[in-house]
Amino acid sequence: MRPSGRAADAMRAVRFTRHFTRHAEGSVLVEFGDTRVLCNATVESRVPPWLKNKGRGWVTAEYSMLPRSTHERMVREAARGKLGGRTMEIQRLIGRSLRAAVDLEALGERQIIVDCDVIQADGGTRTAAISGAYVALRDAIRKAREQGLIRKDPLHGHLAAVSVGIFNGTPVLDLDYDEDSQAETDLNLVMNEAGGVIEIQGTAEGHAFRRDELDQMLDLGEKGIREICDAQRAVLAEG
Amino acid sequence: MRPSGRAADAMRAVRFTRHFTRHAEGSVLVEFGDTRVLCNATVESRVPPWLKNKGRGWVTAEYSMLPRSTHERMVREAARGKLGGRTMEIQRLIGRSLRAAVDLEALGERQIIVDCDVIQADGGTRTAAISGAYVALRDAIRKAREQGLIRKDPLHGHLAAVSVGIFNGTPVLDLDYDEDSQAETDLNLVMNEAGGVIEIQGTAEGHAFRRDELDQMLDLGEKGIREICDAQRAVLAEG
Amino acid sequence: MRPSGRAADAMRAVRFTRHFTRHAEGSVLVEFGDTRVLCNATVESRVPPWLKNKGRGWVTAEYSMLPRSTHERMVREAARGKLGGRTMEIQRLIGRSLRAAVDLEALGERQIIVDCDVIQADGGTRTAAISGAYVALRDAIRKAREQGLIRKDPLHGHLAAVSVGIFNGTPVLDLDYDEDSQAETDLNLVMNEAGGVIEIQGTAEGHAFRRDELDQMLDLGEKGIREICDAQRAVLAEG
Amino acid sequence: MRPSGRAADAMRAVRFTRHFTRHAEGSVLVEFGDTRVLCNATVESRVPPWLKNKGRGWVTAEYSMLPRSTHERMVREAARGKLGGRTMEIQRLIGRSLRAAVDLEALGERQIIVDCDVIQADGGTRTAAISGAYVALRDAIRKAREQGLIRKDPLHGHLAAVSVGIFNGTPVLDLDYDEDSQAETDLNLVMNEAGGVIEIQGTAEGHAFRRDELDQMLDLGEKGIREICDAQRAVLAEG
Amino acid sequence: MRPSGRAADAMRAVRFTRHFTRHAEGSVLVEFGDTRVLCNATVESRVPPWLKNKGRGWVTAEYSMLPRSTHERMVREAARGKLGGRTMEIQRLIGRSLRAAVDLEALGERQIIVDCDVIQADGGTRTAAISGAYVALRDAIRKAREQGLIRKDPLHGHLAAVSVGIFNGTPVLDLDYDEDSQAETDLNLVMNEAGGVIEIQGTAEGHAFRRDELDQMLDLGEKGIREICDAQRAVLAEG
Amino acid sequence: MRPSGRAADAMRAVRFTRHFTRHAEGSVLVEFGDTRVLCNATVESRVPPWLKNKGRGWVTAEYSMLPRSTHERMVREAARGKLGGRTMEIQRLIGRSLRAAVDLEALGERQIIVDCDVIQADGGTRTAAISGAYVALRDAIRKAREQGLIRKDPLHGHLAAVSVGIFNGTPVLDLDYDEDSQAETDLNLVMNEAGGVIEIQGTAEGHAFRRDELDQMLDLGEKGIREICDAQRAVLAEG
Repeated sequence: MRPSGRAADAMRAVRFTRHFTRHAEGSVLVEFGDTRVLCNATVESRVPPWLKNKGRGWVTAEYSMLPRSTHERMVREAARGKLGGRTMEIQRLIGRSLRAAVDLEALGERQIIVDCDVIQADGGTRTAAISGAYVALRDAIRKAREQGLIRKDPLHGHLAAVSVGIFNGTPVLDLDYDEDSQAETDLNLVMNEAGGVIEIQGTAEGHAFRRDELDQMLDLGEKGIREICDAQRAVLAEG
Repeated sequence: MRPSGRAADAMRAVRFTRHFTRHAEGSVLVEFGDTRVLCNATVESRVPPWLKNKGRGWVTAEYSMLPRSTHERMVREAARGKLGGRTMEIQRLIGRSLRAAVDLEALGERQIIVDCDVIQADGGTRTAAISGAYVALRDAIRKAREQGLIRKDPLHGHLAAVSVGIFNGTPVLDLDYDEDSQAETDLNLVMNEAGGVIEIQGTAEGHAFRRDELDQMLDLGEKGIREICDAQRAVLAEG
Repeated sequence: MRPSGRAADAMRAVRFTRHFTRHAEGSVLVEFGDTRVLCNATVESRVPPWLKNKGRGWVTAEYSMLPRSTHERMVREAARGKLGGRTMEIQRLIGRSLRAAVDLEALGERQIIVDCDVIQADGGTRTAAISGAYVALRDAIRKAREQGLIRKDPLHGHLAAVSVGIFNGTPVLDLDYDEDSQAETDLNLVMNEAGGVIEIQGTAEGHAFRRDELDQMLDLGEKGIREICDAQRAVLAEG
Repeated sequence: MRPSGRAADAMRAVRFTRHFTRHAEGSVLVEFGDTRVLCNATVESRVPPWLKNKGRGWVTAEYSMLPRSTHERMVREAARGKLGGRTMEIQRLIGRSLRAAVDLEALGERQIIVDCDVIQADGGTRTAAISGAYVALRDAIRKAREQGLIRKDPLHGHLAAVSVGIFNGTPVLDLDYDEDSQAETDLNLVMNEAGGVIEIQGTAEGHAFRRDELDQMLDLGEKGIREICDAQRAVLAEG
Repeated sequence: MRPSGRAADAMRAVRFTRHFTRHAEGSVLVEFGDTRVLCNATVESRVPPWLKNKGRGWVTAEYSMLPRSTHERMVREAARGKLGGRTMEIQRLIGRSLRAAVDLEALGERQIIVDCDVIQADGGTRTAAISGAYVALRDAIRKAREQGLIRKDPLHGHLAAVSVGIFNGTPVLDLDYDEDSQAETDLNLVMNEAGGVIEIQGTAEGHAFRRDELDQMLDLGEKGIREICDAQRAVLAEG
Repeated sequence: MRPSGRAADAMRAVRFTRHFTRHAEGSVLVEFGDTRVLCNATVESRVPPWLKNKGRGWVTAEYSMLPRSTHERMVREAARGKLGGRTMEIQRLIGRSLRAAVDLEALGERQIIVDCDVIQADGGTRTAAISGAYVALRDAIRKAREQGLIRKDPLHGHLAAVSVGIFNGTPVLDLDYDEDSQAETDLNLVMNEAGGVIEIQGTAEGHAFRRDELDQMLDLGEKGIREICDAQRAVLAEG
């Protein structure tokens, strides 16, 4: 039924490659099937101006797609001279989601910026980015703790994101580009490992969706996020 | 319990003033309590470049806050030279929501732009804007039909938006600024009159919210949207 | 003779509505007939960088037209990414005019910004804005004095603005849009209540105007400004 | 009395050097004392988009100061990424003034742009620019007529500009930088050779000025403009 | 002597990975040691406006560094709102170099854009980018020929780039970051496989360099470029 | 052979006019034949932020062409809102070249900015600019030494720039516009008076150039730069 032949509740292959580049404090290539996003976490010893001298830190994110990560080449935002609305929305979403997993006071007066650059897009870039950024963040914090910059672990627990939607009338998990471009409804979920909702963003592209459809999608999302959290734990256990 | 003394499921006073200014094809001042947004709908006989010669129309929105609509004066985006991320997110949301109520083919090759300018802010400006923009859109379409520009009514039915949230542990309807700034969770809902969900956007500001909390918030939202749709029908019945 | 039927020396109805919005220290809706401008004055406890530690304050203004305040919708300057030349000219004019009425030393090291947003345009928006901004400025200063921020009244006396022009060969007072778009000469005058000239800006749109025509226009302007100052005094006397 | 020792009604030395650069259709270096502005007129065979197919031409101007034309180096507007308000005001003034001297229909569907670049500033750069731009415009039109592009002379007659002001209580003609920076009132006048006013822009920097002061300044301005027009005629007579 | 232990005339390991991403017509990851650049070539069926209807094509390039490709995180140019001078210089250099290898008439009215995005930087990013872009260009042209878009091979022959410099008084080939940051002279060379110079850009960072030093650097460069061309041929022979 | 009738190794007339404007600390009009560039050097008592408190100074340059310095009018970069790539490349080149002649420590914590504005262009504007900027820099430093701001002379010796190229198969010195627009190769050289190379930037516009062609061009360049340095010495000797 699904173009990829997957079952309605099946995730694509999820893979995290740590230490993908060598300069960043945390550097993770995350793959959800053919979607590939490079997540680099940078620890900086300064905070944004409005946070100065408050004894707290900050976590933020930037998101960008390489011009030819997509079927058609996109014009570079740096060449246009401004960020598009979609980019801003996504980087605000990633930042808010990550902050939900971090005790900003335990971080101290420092900032962690996670750069999420899409190398290849096949649907679900923002959910892959959040899931990978979490691992990069974790590596960056580990390094900062080894260097004695941070004493207490500021991370609350695992967090991941996945998209769900209604495709040909059926709720499905983790939409790829073929599904995404035809889905009637698209819902992005960010949840913690306990199943608590951190962000929910859904749009009816076709007909407005009913409460029971929303419930089915939430069930699928919970399942997917559990699996992504498992994959995160596995790769982080490698030391 | 609520700073305003309202019951958990009580909306603020909702008011629509049609024909608020004289040049726009649809001009509505919407008030949700002390939140006041001017929604002006303009009908243009051209479509965006990527829609040319496709036999379909377009509906879009722009959103802005007057610098002193808020407690502290905000710097004008025109002076900064760029739109902020929040503004872009909101105007994209308004546009998507309105398009869900319109048959773009019936509209023909024309564009309707709804400008939503916040005159005074007290929480819920985006949901008030969507609810008011719908009325302005309706007036603009009525005028275009009277002028013989559009033959078939392109509007599917009523649509409104409201915010719900968790304040002091209790789910509440239609948050004002005092509540919004302290809420643990903030959820914006756009629904049609039949209770179908068009947009759902929720953020856990404090703890991640549970499925049962989400259900309670959705119930409150449905109630609020029913009331706003009633108010829309009443004011539009005045002819 | 005039499209509106007014006598050559007749002003449109001038109305000031104070406390139009609730957050600004001074908030006035000014109407010159169908021209409606919202003037919000904000008192800030800082001055521009080049005025720091000089013991003086500053008064400045910003001007903007809502996209559909006009017959045809105008593109938003925030969307364009820059202020147009006309906007800059007008906001510089408003700021200079207001400063002429204020003792900047008595103001102390604080800044008052008056935002003038045109809700509906029918000619004369800049002169209405100056006349309304004066009232908003007065209210903001009154509030600052009540709060003990300013001891001595920094205001020198009343100030207002009006446009005059030559329409169909006849000098006329307070041009509306129909006149303005066809006038041979357009002259904006800012004067104090004693008839002293603060700003004079005139442009011959058709033939160059003669000294005697200039004299007639100045006489009309003086009369109009006297009437606007009377209206200001009346509304401010309400307490 | 005046820092320069000039009489109240004395102009600085006015000089026009034609053919100052070789590429422009009209190229004039104008000097008002130590103020030096290079005015280059370009004839283009196209008009702005909004004038297409209307059978009329356009005349416009751009104005800029070299960074070190002034006492203190100014940051380049190209480096800032935007034109300042003063620049826009001045180039709009120059453009409007020149158009008042040109029959745009006789010009045909072509545009003349006059670039006014200040090489050295000592007060009165905008009035020198207008006076010099007129000569450059005349040379450009002469060339276009020789090439058979324009048949009928589109120029109405001479036009020049000068500043007047009140310095130490006395009305004076053609203020230099020392006077300008201390003047109580500054008035820029653009007039035709018949004494008709094309533009009048006056600002009270100190006290509001009286009608009799305005009259004295207008008399001085007329005298100055007569002298500049004479100088224009003399240099243009050289062929 | 060299921090890396390499001989003065030794290149770092040069590697080209073709088909690195799946959407671009040519997609090559080039590595010069730890420097990694992703080069994606896009074939578009349109040319820049100034080339329309001239029967010729165009080849251009864009260059960017991921924010954390470097030791310290760099601010994103898209966030700044403009391209830096170094970026512009490099992308102009890449574009000019590639065009020197292409018969633009044989290309027909189409444009090839090569996006060079630095994933990890360790010196020599621009020379790696040119060398890799050539391979991506070749793959993109191969595809266009297979699709019948281009009949005649528009490529003249191989082309590569390398940096040479004077490090601790000795001319060396292919500087890495440690060398580059201390080199007295830095020279970038683009040459064809026949040893003809396409671009030469050299800067004395310390003392001005002598003609004999220039000669030694050119010899080293020729050797390096011969080796890179060999590597290009080897990887392209894989089919 | 050359359009100008010059011998292959002949420079155009080189002229330096010092004290061209009166405000700048160093002000030089440099002419290479019909190419005229105004070079104004400004001494500022501050350094760029990244140089603060390091005990060293900075020398930088800005470059711009007046819109009608060229055959066709160019759009002003200030109006476009950004600097073009060519402008950035050239001003970076001028700045690097000048710094090669200056002991930045002897300069102390101050910055010298040299503004190079092209009044009239006929090829070789960047090499004329560098050669003239050197003289302006020298005058500015002389003034700063007279004022006691700088004790030790921070200038190392003379420095100049010239272009060489291959025109109709023959290496030629100091290309003018007619040659430049048809040259097969264009090479810009910056050298000191001892013949040491400071910058070399060459581009093959047609066929890639051979090593022996490069040698011939370098010989011509050395000859030209010797002559320009002589002219600099002569004009500076005038006191």
